[in-house]
Amino acid sequence: MAMTLDNQIQQAHNAWLQIRNWSPQQISTMLNAIADALDLAKGELVPVAMEETNLPEARLTGEVGRTSGQLRLMARAVQDRTYLDITIDHADSSLTPPRPDLRMKTTSLGVVGVFGASNFPFAFGVAGGDTASAIAAGCAVIIKVNPGHPRVSRMVGTIMINAAKNVGAPDGLISLVEDFDAGIALVEHPLTAAIAFTGSTHGGRALFDAACRREIPIPFYGELGGLNPIFVTRAMASQQAKETAEGFLASITMGAGQFCTKPGFLIVEGADEINAQLATLVSAAPGQKLLNSKIVELHDKNRDEISQVPGMNLVAQNSGEGDTYVSVFTISASDFLKAGASAKREVFGPTAVVVNCENSEELIDVARSFSGTLASGIHATDNDPTEIGPLLSILENISGRIVWNQWPTGLAVTWAMHHGGPYPASTNSLFTSVGAKALLRFRRPIAYQNFPQRYLDSVLRDDAPELKSARINGEL
Amino acid sequence: MAMTLDNQIQQAHNAWLQIRNWSPQQISTMLNAIADALDLAKGELVPVAMEETNLPEARLTGEVGRTSGQLRLMARAVQDRTYLDITIDHADSSLTPPRPDLRMKTTSLGVVGVFGASNFPFAFGVAGGDTASAIAAGCAVIIKVNPGHPRVSRMVGTIMINAAKNVGAPDGLISLVEDFDAGIALVEHPLTAAIAFTGSTHGGRALFDAACRREIPIPFYGELGGLNPIFVTRAMASQQAKETAEGFLASITMGAGQFCTKPGFLIVEGADEINAQLATLVSAAPGQKLLNSKIVELHDKNRDEISQVPGMNLVAQNSGEGDTYVSVFTISASDFLKAGASAKREVFGPTAVVVNCENSEELIDVARSFSGTLASGIHATDNDPTEIGPLLSILENISGRIVWNQWPTGLAVTWAMHHGGPYPASTNSLFTSVGAKALLRFRRPIAYQNFPQRYLDSVLRDDAPELKSARINGEL
Repeated sequence: MAMTLDNQIQQAHNAWLQIRNWSPQQISTMLNAIADALDLAKGELVPVAMEETNLPEARLTGEVGRTSGQLRLMARAVQDRTYLDITIDHADSSLTPPRPDLRMKTTSLGVVGVFGASNFPFAFGVAGGDTASAIAAGCAVIIKVNPGHPRVSRMVGTIMINAAKNVGAPDGLISLVEDFDAGIALVEHPLTAAIAFTGSTHGGRALFDAACRREIPIPFYGELGGLNPIFVTRAMASQQAKETAEGFLASITMGAGQFCTKPGFLIVEGADEINAQLATLVSAAPGQKLLNSKIVELHDKNRDEISQVPGMNLVAQNSGEGDTYVSVFTISASDFLKAGASAKREVFGPTAVVVNCENSEELIDVARSFSGTLASGIHATDNDPTEIGPLLSILENISGRIVWNQWPTGLAVTWAMHHGGPYPASTNSLFTSVGAKALLRFRRPIAYQNFPQRYLDSVLRDDAPELKSARINGEL
Repeated sequence: MAMTLDNQIQQAHNAWLQIRNWSPQQISTMLNAIADALDLAKGELVPVAMEETNLPEARLTGEVGRTSGQLRLMARAVQDRTYLDITIDHADSSLTPPRPDLRMKTTSLGVVGVFGASNFPFAFGVAGGDTASAIAAGCAVIIKVNPGHPRVSRMVGTIMINAAKNVGAPDGLISLVEDFDAGIALVEHPLTAAIAFTGSTHGGRALFDAACRREIPIPFYGELGGLNPIFVTRAMASQQAKETAEGFLASITMGAGQFCTKPGFLIVEGADEINAQLATLVSAAPGQKLLNSKIVELHDKNRDEISQVPGMNLVAQNSGEGDTYVSVFTISASDFLKAGASAKREVFGPTAVVVNCENSEELIDVARSFSGTLASGIHATDNDPTEIGPLLSILENISGRIVWNQWPTGLAVTWAMHHGGPYPASTNSLFTSVGAKALLRFRRPIAYQNFPQRYLDSVLRDDAPELKSARINGEL
């Protein structure tokens, strides 16, 4: 008999209460056990993911490794203990008013609902970064399976649940839901404490609104994508037109353009030579297989709409073998600015736009016209005559990450990565969804005032090794 | 000619752009200059605040000192530089995939709208903690003046603006708005980047909803108050009834009960002796002057409504000299649980409720019935026979701060303070509104990938002194 969603969330909540006081060591062990189990099952998982997503074997094999790597990075982040943010002020009766003993640490939020993405069946899927960081934070997780790859998601879920159970996880700590209505109900359920979502702006915003409308609103961490504009100076465009065109094409066709970090817009001062290079390169680009027919349909619709923007011209398409064409369009800066939002469409798939600027003022004006984005970039030469400061200042206002002479696709999963950014890049620009700090989304501070040692969590006691790296009386 | 709000916000945004790259030293200097100017003006400010708020001179004089102290703590927090969260991963081509150079720090959000509270004309007013932390974060501020004390707010605003200008702050970095509609418009304006609010659940929720409904939603940090239940074991209630009653009465009449940390509910296993003590003590309590006639009206209405809850009995009132009575009611745990939300009303002013439990199971059931609160507490004896663990676990779920054998009123402004907590204590339980970490609400991370040294902010360069305490390649 199927469990009702209400029972499932109640069971997750109870499981969370049981692991709330697990030590960092226990949580790390669980994360590593899940990572090991995933690596072991690679051979069974990859063929099923290939069938469901059209992604090639090498990419999916690498993605399993990236996913287990994320889990292991989270295990190390938990061992590191800085996420506890231990802060202590000792009582001081000489102050006016006298200061009580205060000991602060973070605590886990509760049941986290995770909505996996379509484009990374492993790394942003059931056992992906959001799940890893929620478990690392000491939360229970209920994962809404992406309808694009249900079979491999169920397999990953089973592997993960069994691996966790083997190291003592209580029943219900990790579970899956599948249908659309269950996803909404998960956001609205009183025992759901936070949501992590990776997907479209449209879908993410609807769920964000539902999370905000609750009687008790909950944090909603939505990673909704980006236009990821890359700006190319005149010197770069003339000195390295071919390399820039090659790099751009490689980046917009990586994963068949189905990356949230795809550079959808290349803004160039003097784009003629780059466009000429692209005309040749794009025509020869290999065929692209998209995730599924719905994605093809949506891609083609968005591409056709962007092609209708006044002043938008096709630079080149490839032969269209595969599911769809690789398409690069170009438009003048003045037409681009006139078109407003209609030209700034995120096209999920191998379509991109080159914006041709006559001068650096136009480059700046185009930069100003973008809103929040996961990433942006600047391509310039050594000793470039273009003044970089003003452009950089604008990009800092809108970006979670700024890339210099590289491309934004291919995210390093590290401590210094920031994957987020002003809306609509994310619904909460204060946190990253990728990298070691992603677990901070699911912890909140709590302060203990005047507590006897015996009732304090062991990490807050006077003899805790954690105090060596804590802030005590204002000093680190 | 009055400036339009749109112009005012535009000017604040421009001022923010100018100070975005100010050094921590410059920001600290500005905070200290404001603190010094406030202290100097104490003699002029306090009499006006007395007229507008009915609060006594000693309290208001102390509050100015607390306010300048908050500004100076923020100046030290900025000098500390940990809020920059500097994190660096060096390029490593030996990894698969090769890792690029990544340098992460936080950056300021932009224009912050601050809504000051009625009950602390200085510490949560125009130059209060929210303003101090927003400026410390490197933001511009526009402060909605609380209608309860407009004159002293304008005086503080002028002092603060002049002090900031004297150390080089651009025009419009700090400014005020007064009318209700301007407050809403501030939340809705496209250039407003975040809101900090201290006040009622009703008013805060309305503004929170407006912040979430925006085309580009913004962070809304609302501190909406709390019921702050304090739990007393049977042993404590019998061994220290008088001390407990005295402490409770002192705490619920501090500031005439107009504190968001007022312990509105005392939940006691075996309350008869404490109630008997309270009957005597409350009758003799001094008269209370509330902030203004509107607050008196609202207090009396809420008190009368809570008095109508079935099973609610008056323990005692004082003589009612001043603006209103000090009132303590009592109710059995079973009646309290039956009454649901109607008994769990925050009464702003000197009214409180003692919940009388027959046994420790009832104490636990009552604890479970509370939702998010700024603070909660446990009063117990040394070697108390009551098992504390289950109660503490429940309080950890709902509280931002838990107090042991002390009272929640009187907030220490320190590094380890947490003033926040699950909704409705705050609209964002991940951050504190009081203490050094409050500035983190107004910073977001940004990562720089593969950047030449010369285009990096000085704190991210290889020769930055800040790197000594940064996390580099995963290690602190």
